[in-house]
Amino acid sequence: MAKSLPVSPLASPLPTLGVVPGVRLGAVEAGIRYKGRTDLVVAEFDAGTTVAGVFTRSKCPGAPVDWCRTALKGGVARALVVNAGNANVFTGKAGIETCRVTAEAEAELAGCPSSEVFLASTGVIGEVLPTGKITAALPGLHASLTENGWEAAARGIMTTDTFPKAAVKKTEIGGVPVVIQGIAKGSGMIAPDMATMLSFVATDAALPASVLQALLSEGTGSSFNAVTVDSDTSTSDMVLLFATGKAENPAINGVDDPALASFRTALNELLLDLALMVVRDGEGATKQIRIRVTGATSDKSARVIARAIADSPLVKTAVAGEDANWGRVVMAVGKCGEPADRDRLAVSIGGVTIACEGTVVDGYDETPVVAHMKGQEIDIDVDLGLGEGKATMWTCDLTHGYIDINGSYRS
Amino acid sequence: MAKSLPVSPLASPLPTLGVVPGVRLGAVEAGIRYKGRTDLVVAEFDAGTTVAGVFTRSKCPGAPVDWCRTALKGGVARALVVNAGNANVFTGKAGIETCRVTAEAEAELAGCPSSEVFLASTGVIGEVLPTGKITAALPGLHASLTENGWEAAARGIMTTDTFPKAAVKKTEIGGVPVVIQGIAKGSGMIAPDMATMLSFVATDAALPASVLQALLSEGTGSSFNAVTVDSDTSTSDMVLLFATGKAENPAINGVDDPALASFRTALNELLLDLALMVVRDGEGATKQIRIRVTGATSDKSARVIARAIADSPLVKTAVAGEDANWGRVVMAVGKCGEPADRDRLAVSIGGVTIACEGTVVDGYDETPVVAHMKGQEIDIDVDLGLGEGKATMWTCDLTHGYIDINGSYRS
Repeated sequence: MAKSLPVSPLASPLPTLGVVPGVRLGAVEAGIRYKGRTDLVVAEFDAGTTVAGVFTRSKCPGAPVDWCRTALKGGVARALVVNAGNANVFTGKAGIETCRVTAEAEAELAGCPSSEVFLASTGVIGEVLPTGKITAALPGLHASLTENGWEAAARGIMTTDTFPKAAVKKTEIGGVPVVIQGIAKGSGMIAPDMATMLSFVATDAALPASVLQALLSEGTGSSFNAVTVDSDTSTSDMVLLFATGKAENPAINGVDDPALASFRTALNELLLDLALMVVRDGEGATKQIRIRVTGATSDKSARVIARAIADSPLVKTAVAGEDANWGRVVMAVGKCGEPADRDRLAVSIGGVTIACEGTVVDGYDETPVVAHMKGQEIDIDVDLGLGEGKATMWTCDLTHGYIDINGSYRS
Repeated sequence: MAKSLPVSPLASPLPTLGVVPGVRLGAVEAGIRYKGRTDLVVAEFDAGTTVAGVFTRSKCPGAPVDWCRTALKGGVARALVVNAGNANVFTGKAGIETCRVTAEAEAELAGCPSSEVFLASTGVIGEVLPTGKITAALPGLHASLTENGWEAAARGIMTTDTFPKAAVKKTEIGGVPVVIQGIAKGSGMIAPDMATMLSFVATDAALPASVLQALLSEGTGSSFNAVTVDSDTSTSDMVLLFATGKAENPAINGVDDPALASFRTALNELLLDLALMVVRDGEGATKQIRIRVTGATSDKSARVIARAIADSPLVKTAVAGEDANWGRVVMAVGKCGEPADRDRLAVSIGGVTIACEGTVVDGYDETPVVAHMKGQEIDIDVDLGLGEGKATMWTCDLTHGYIDINGSYRS
C-alpha cells in the first residue's frame, strides 16, 4: 500500500466546495497505517443536527457499523470520527472497546454524550486498530476544525481511491435556499445493498431525523445501491446524512411534503454523483458501464438481471478489451435464474440494437458499436420483452489494474 | 483466438486411455472457426446404448441444449456430434435448423433415427454455425472412427483449454469388470448448476437410462456443480453419460441396488477428477483453491457461503498474490446473506486456524500460512459454529491471465 496508484483515467475533478453552516471539519496524520498522509477525519456539528444512515447488509459488519446503528436510534449527531487504513472489522472485543474509547474521547472535546458521536473505519480487516493513536490526535484535530475543511476530509478518508470525491448541490425548501454537500470514498469491495463505501453528506436544511432517513433510504436505492465494482460487499460501509437546521427553512410536514420536491431531487442527484465517482474510481477501471434493463417481469427481477450483467467477469473483461461481445450479455441474462425468454430478448450497445428476438439483427453493422466501445462511457441496454420491470445499474470494466491492486493490497 | 495460450501450470497429464467397448470416436478439422486443429468430434455407440444428461440452468441455453433435452426423453443414444469454436447460441431459427440438419446427416451415417443423435457446441455466442462445413466433414469422420479415438476427441473439443482432459476408472458391477472413461473441456464461463463445460463419459456397463440418470445427477452435484472459475454460467454446457451394456453385467434393480456401490464410487471420482481438471485449466489459473464450509445452518446454506467465497474477486486475487488475506474470506461470508455470527466464525488457511470467535487467534504466526500460500493447492476452511451444514467447492485464483484471455477472446 506504500506505492501510490496512478489516477483513474475516469477521475472527476473536485468541484468547488462551499460550506455547510453548522459543520466544521478537518483531517490529520495520525499514523494509523499510512505514512505521509492524513488518515483521521473529524466533523463536528452544531447542536440540533439530525442524522440518517444506511449501512452494509453484511452479516459480519465492523464494530463501527454496530456502533452507528445504535447511535442512530437517537436521531441526533454532534460529531463524526473516521479513520482510513484499518477497518476495525473482525477485531472482537478489542474492536468494540476501540469504538467506545474513541467516541468518549471525541464526546469530551465536542461537549456531547458519546451516543451522539458517529464512527467509521475503512481499510484492512482483522487487525486491531491502535486506539491510542486516534485519541492522541483528536485534541489537535478538534482545535483545527473549520467550515472549509471539506476537501481535507475528502482526502483523509481515501484508501485505494485515486482521487478525492465530493459533490455539492444548491436547492431550496419552501423558498429558503439550502445547500447539500458530501464526500465519499471507495474503489474496491463495492457492491449494492450498502456495500459500496463511506459517504458523509451534510445539509443546512432543518429536517426531522425520520424525514431525513426516509429521503436517504430512497436516494441510496438508485445511487449507492445501484453501483457495483466487483460484487464484493464490504463489512464497513455506510452513508450518513446530517442536517444542521441552520437554513431555518419552514417546518416540513412529513416526507411527502411537496415543499421537499427540489431538495429530494438535489439529494438524489448528489448521491448518484458520489456513487458514480466511486464507480469511476473502481479499482483498475478504464471505462464506466451503464446497464439498463427493461421489459422484465418486475423491477426486482430487472435489478437482479442488471446486477448479473454488471458483475459478470466476462462482460467486464470484454468491455476492458473494447470488444462488443454481446453474447456474454446474453449469457449473464441467462445465468441469473430470473424469467427470460431467449426468443424475445433484445440487446443494444451504445444505442445500436445488435440482437432481438433470439438472434442477431439482419445486416448488423458492428462499426458504430466498435466506435462506442472505444469511449469511456459504455451503455448496455437489454429488453426482455416480458413486462414493465426496469432497473439501471452502473459498474466499471475489469482490467489488469484490478489484479495489480488486489493481488498485493496488504504487502 | 489464433494465438495459443501457455499451458496451465496446474495442467494434469493425460492418463493412459483404454477403450470402452461399444464406443468408436474421432475428430477432424472441419474449419468451423479454428485453423490447423481439429474442431469436430463424433462418437458412435452400439445399439442398446442408454444415455443420461445434465444441462446448464441458463434461461438462454443454446440450440444444442434444447435438442439434447428432447433427445434425452428417449433414453437411447447412437451418436454424438460436438463442434468447438461456435456455440450455436442465440442464433434463432438458423440455430435450430443447424441442429436438425446436423443430426439428420449423422443419423444417416450411423443408421439410426436423428432423435438418437446428441449434439453439443462450444465457442462464440451469436454467430450462425456454418452447417455445411459440418455435414461436409461428417462422412470422412464417420469412416475414421475408432475405439482408440478418445485422445483425439479430448483434443477436438477444446476451446481456450490449454490441455486435454480425460479420466478413466475400472470398477465392477456384480463381480463383472466394467470401465468408465470420459473427456471434458472448459476453462472459462464456468460456474455451478451445470454451467461448467462439456463432458462426455461412457461406460460399457449395462444400466437402464433411469438408473444412469440418477447416478449422473447425484455425481454432478459434488463435482461439476461444485466448481466455479468465474461465476459465469454458460449457455451451452452439459455432461452426457453413455452406457453401452457391452460388459454384460447382471441386471440392476434400481439406483439403490447394492451391486452399484463400486460403480457409483468410481463414477463420482471420475466426475470429480474431470471437474477439477476444468478448475486447474481455469482461465489464467495458477492455483487451485478448495473451500470447505462447516457449521452452517444447513448444507444448502454452506453451499451458498462456499460459493460466495469461491466467486469473490477479492479472495481470488489475494490467492493469486499469495496473500493470506483472511479478512476477505470474512467479507465473503458476510456478503452472501446466509446466517452467520461474526463472533462464532473461525477461518483456517492451509490447516492453520487464523481466526476464531470473531477475532484473530492469540499469537497468530503467519509463517506456515505464508508457506502454504506459495503452493499450488490452497485450502480455505470456514466454520460458522452454528449447525451441521457443510459443503465443499473448488475454484482457482484470478490473475492477469484471465484478463488477457477474456479481454481479447474474439479478436
